Amino acid sequence: MFEFHLEATQGLARAGRLTLPHGTVATPAFMPVGTHGVVRGLSAGDVARTGAQIILGNTYHLHLRPGEAVVRQMGGLHRFTTWSGPMLTDSGGFQVFSLEGLRRIDEDGVEFQSHVDGTYRRLSPERAMEIQWALGADIAMAFDHVVPGQAPQDLACEGMERTLRWLDRCRARHAALTEGRKGGRTEGGSDGGADVPALDVETLATGNAATAESGPASHVPSVRPSVLPSPRQTLWPIIQGGTHDDLRRRSLDGTLERGPWAGIAIGGLSVGEPKPVMHRILETLAPELPRETPRYLMGVGFPSDLLEGIARGVDLFDCVAATRNGRHGTAWLPTGRINVRGAALKGSTEPLDPECDCEACTTYPRGYLRHLFVVEDMLGLRLVSLHNVRFLVRLGELARAHILDGTFDAWSREWLRRYHARGT
Amino acid sequence: MFEFHLEATQGLARAGRLTLPHGTVATPAFMPVGTHGVVRGLSAGDVARTGAQIILGNTYHLHLRPGEAVVRQMGGLHRFTTWSGPMLTDSGGFQVFSLEGLRRIDEDGVEFQSHVDGTYRRLSPERAMEIQWALGADIAMAFDHVVPGQAPQDLACEGMERTLRWLDRCRARHAALTEGRKGGRTEGGSDGGADVPALDVETLATGNAATAESGPASHVPSVRPSVLPSPRQTLWPIIQGGTHDDLRRRSLDGTLERGPWAGIAIGGLSVGEPKPVMHRILETLAPELPRETPRYLMGVGFPSDLLEGIARGVDLFDCVAATRNGRHGTAWLPTGRINVRGAALKGSTEPLDPECDCEACTTYPRGYLRHLFVVEDMLGLRLVSLHNVRFLVRLGELARAHILDGTFDAWSREWLRRYHARGT
Repeated sequence: MFEFHLEATQGLARAGRLTLPHGTVATPAFMPVGTHGVVRGLSAGDVARTGAQIILGNTYHLHLRPGEAVVRQMGGLHRFTTWSGPMLTDSGGFQVFSLEGLRRIDEDGVEFQSHVDGTYRRLSPERAMEIQWALGADIAMAFDHVVPGQAPQDLACEGMERTLRWLDRCRARHAALTEGRKGGRTEGGSDGGADVPALDVETLATGNAATAESGPASHVPSVRPSVLPSPRQTLWPIIQGGTHDDLRRRSLDGTLERGPWAGIAIGGLSVGEPKPVMHRILETLAPELPRETPRYLMGVGFPSDLLEGIARGVDLFDCVAATRNGRHGTAWLPTGRINVRGAALKGSTEPLDPECDCEACTTYPRGYLRHLFVVEDMLGLRLVSLHNVRFLVRLGELARAHILDGTFDAWSREWLRRYHARGT
Repeated sequence: MFEFHLEATQGLARAGRLTLPHGTVATPAFMPVGTHGVVRGLSAGDVARTGAQIILGNTYHLHLRPGEAVVRQMGGLHRFTTWSGPMLTDSGGFQVFSLEGLRRIDEDGVEFQSHVDGTYRRLSPERAMEIQWALGADIAMAFDHVVPGQAPQDLACEGMERTLRWLDRCRARHAALTEGRKGGRTEGGSDGGADVPALDVETLATGNAATAESGPASHVPSVRPSVLPSPRQTLWPIIQGGTHDDLRRRSLDGTLERGPWAGIAIGGLSVGEPKPVMHRILETLAPELPRETPRYLMGVGFPSDLLEGIARGVDLFDCVAATRNGRHGTAWLPTGRINVRGAALKGSTEPLDPECDCEACTTYPRGYLRHLFVVEDMLGLRLVSLHNVRFLVRLGELARAHILDGTFDAWSREWLRRYHARGT
């Protein structure tokens, strides 16, 4: 159920098929971000119609609102959101480390202040596993120590080494949760059995700082893991090490020693470093990564990033840019990005992107999309978000077809040339 | 093509079928409001799936943005919005009279200041006809002089009499436009033929105060009416007279003298007067209105208003409350309205309205809809708007079925009892 079949390679570009409890993901693939359990402004049906095969949920945001206890009580993320395909949750690490000034880190974990209500909360490797387990993700991400982009060697080293130590704790807690599900028995000496019964909803709820959103809910029934459908969740580690090749190699070695893994993520990139640096790190890691393991480049997903990443062996991407740009009226086209509010679109009866098969492009004239932004109707935000998501999903589909054809390199070069021709 | 067949009556409640160029409307029916050529936040497909048969566009708003010249150049409102069913446009009268302090009225028309860019513009009976003609509505509304709710007799009388004088001018200009379409020939001495060639797009555009949105667009081709698909537009008059029975009767008599009409609207109600007063006016007019002419009660459309109006012979309704309430998180249920943000919905896996067949109610648990409002995702606004529109459309469908069954009175009484039982 967690297999990854590599179907073709051409140079480093790979086409594969990742089988997960809620479906199969043909890679390379873009994964839309459903921050709060919703891809901003889009229904699960909208997202499905873009061809997206898997979506991401943010543990930090879902922990704060509505709280994992509520999601669990409602049957897990899939029933909560009505998204029936595979879901991945991040660990909350990236978000809490982004809360500059609102968080305190020690070896145990991170204390942080909720951006919603100011309450103090803790995330640790164990809590990150418990929350993702309660959410019922298909893929849970390890809790990592994220350092700022271009951090110096010593800081990047500290974050990388802590991420490995935390990986041990994530693995132990995840194994315990998995074994607990199987009836409280443990294997290989993990301490799972004894701890796991604690994971009923009331314990999860009262384990948080009490708030209106995720505090103790006395009417919430206590649901044991075993009464929920088995999520058959896998845990994926995250490679850190900043922009330092040696640290990245050590992070990978340490991660592989702790394996095998169903998938491996590369974190801490696209956080301010120059593009060539990101490409160099990917090139450093690519030949060392296990060939039959899917590779997920976290938080990366502008159109050209997708092709550059795919060329360097990446299988899975996520990024909020598609929907964020969409809400701001920036649409991606094969000839570069355009501002949908632009006067050039006024009165135009042409489709936004004549090559696209999304709802926005096949239904509405550009002039109407522009009008929606001018009069500030949220339908415009939705339609351009939809287009941008479909644009990236389709780019993944096209890349896959060209990898399988053996024509990826030439196609990708020509695609990038056309995309950048106007200098956008 | 403009026929209205009355299929059944029970007391005053009527079931009919209104045939228009873009389709047939089974009445009684609720008409969602597409202020800017979009039912706020909903795609044309969303609206079609609610079962809505006809939508309303606001002449005032569409004149300001994008301007009727742009809509016309793009092929008319139907192509612009992709709504393929019948469309009605109001005349702009209600909107400009609502611009307290920003408008000056005389016998010729109204000078007003755009709320968008502050430019001064004029609306007159003739301009209102030209704009609606350029927009390509199936039903154009006469330009009326709207007075404040509960205006005293003399003011209400002034508005009512001016509305009749303006109706003559609307009819003359509409006839000219219609005759112009047929090749410039006139009938019955109307002055249509000579004036009509002026109605090309450039003239319409430069006839406005020049602005970025609707000013002279030098790249806009000059499109003559005859090259557009025939809109076969009908003009509907509006009964005014405030809350004064005698003025309402005089307004109706004056209107009928100028007929026949394809439909007749009742304006100036639900603007602050007590409900029993509105009901009394409807009861005063009902027996005097031509039996085979559809009756449109403008700007009215809360759930109970619909049933009270239908009971008094109204065929067609419009109101922004469905979508406005939806955006504010207020949903209509058969048991009264609820606040979707309410704590009672937290974690609930029940549908919003178990009796409803809309996308929101058949797809999502209430607890998820609440979550969308808590995290301020626009999907929540869309889904509750969708539900409220479907709620009113379905109420019209149910009323129709019960009229045809001969069970309307008892059913409506019971429906209203249940709806108001909680005191909402």
